[in-house]
Amino acid sequence: MRTVFDSQLALLEAQMLVMASSMEEAVVGAVEVLESRDKERARAIMEGDDDIDHQEREIEALCLKLLLTQQPVAGDLRRVSAALKMVGDMERIADQAADIAEIVLTLEGEAFDSKLNKHLAKMGRQAAGMVHDAAEAFVKRDGERASQVVGEDASVNEMFERVKRDIIKGIQAESDPAANLVEALMVAKYLERVGDHAQNIAEWVEYSITGRYKGELLG
Amino acid sequence: MRTVFDSQLALLEAQMLVMASSMEEAVVGAVEVLESRDKERARAIMEGDDDIDHQEREIEALCLKLLLTQQPVAGDLRRVSAALKMVGDMERIADQAADIAEIVLTLEGEAFDSKLNKHLAKMGRQAAGMVHDAAEAFVKRDGERASQVVGEDASVNEMFERVKRDIIKGIQAESDPAANLVEALMVAKYLERVGDHAQNIAEWVEYSITGRYKGELLG
Repeated sequence: MRTVFDSQLALLEAQMLVMASSMEEAVVGAVEVLESRDKERARAIMEGDDDIDHQEREIEALCLKLLLTQQPVAGDLRRVSAALKMVGDMERIADQAADIAEIVLTLEGEAFDSKLNKHLAKMGRQAAGMVHDAAEAFVKRDGERASQVVGEDASVNEMFERVKRDIIKGIQAESDPAANLVEALMVAKYLERVGDHAQNIAEWVEYSITGRYKGELLG
Repeated sequence: MRTVFDSQLALLEAQMLVMASSMEEAVVGAVEVLESRDKERARAIMEGDDDIDHQEREIEALCLKLLLTQQPVAGDLRRVSAALKMVGDMERIADQAADIAEIVLTLEGEAFDSKLNKHLAKMGRQAAGMVHDAAEAFVKRDGERASQVVGEDASVNEMFERVKRDIIKGIQAESDPAANLVEALMVAKYLERVGDHAQNIAEWVEYSITGRYKGELLG
């Protein structure tokens, strides 16, 4: 028979899976509404964020309960403490998605200048891909995949710099209304942060598998 | 005689204090160099960030060691798990300060338009004040002060909206070079995030004192 601890740990993993899918869905949705400008869907992404915040609190409560009542050791302790850290990044990723959706609601007129639009969309897909892979690495306890995610953040950062240059050019050429260009820069920044948080998640996955966090042995 | 656990907990608190002062110093410095445009000092703030990252990892390692070997309960467990969560926000605050310092290095010419400059400086002081108060609330286990910090975030968010409006106007009036205005917006966003992270820290301080996180009983 399963012990109480085993079933609580299984519950934790199941809750993490639900939260990971919610977060991934929010990011993919935010990237899509950025192009489609579908305001109804943008509103739904924003409203979904409360639910993700609630999931975070439930997971935190369960992690603390597990630490408090079950006093796990070794690999189990790493898994619980990594989960406690990771949910913070997962919630932050969902926040950025909601922030992007909120921006879509404020944009006036049609899509951005085609080059800016293309670069933003590419950046969005890359960031969403990192989120997906980090979540999958956690689920499958796949350290190799986690390391790949860590390596991808630099390319999202480069894309941010490129989009920033597009925006400065757009301001000078008045290719889009100034207010829209300012919001496009915010979107790019949020996507860059999504990449950062996906990297953080991947680093905690590595820790939960190997005991090494950013290459250093912890605990 | 003190137990091993007590001395390790005292060490954790001392390390948290060092990290809190480093973080606060970085934010205050970033706000100052934004006005003074002192590039040498900006470089020093950027370089100090590696040290803060290292402090974070040391604290995380100590928290995990405490959880693993000492299996603290009740209030002690809350203090250790809150520390484990808070250092993430502290590190992120220092990152934003380093990002602002890095921007100062790239700015061309003199200070921003005086209104924008004034609003940014005010926003910076408010965000730095929240960081100071959140750190002090942790040190003094002062739940009331922590609650005050939580309440202040809305005003930093409002200031961000005001600065954003200044910047859109500045773009239209060409009051500053477009590249500088884009960077000013990034600075404002980073300061707004500093406020968010200070609020997160204050929420973990409340939890470590009361067992309630964002008003909900955890664990």
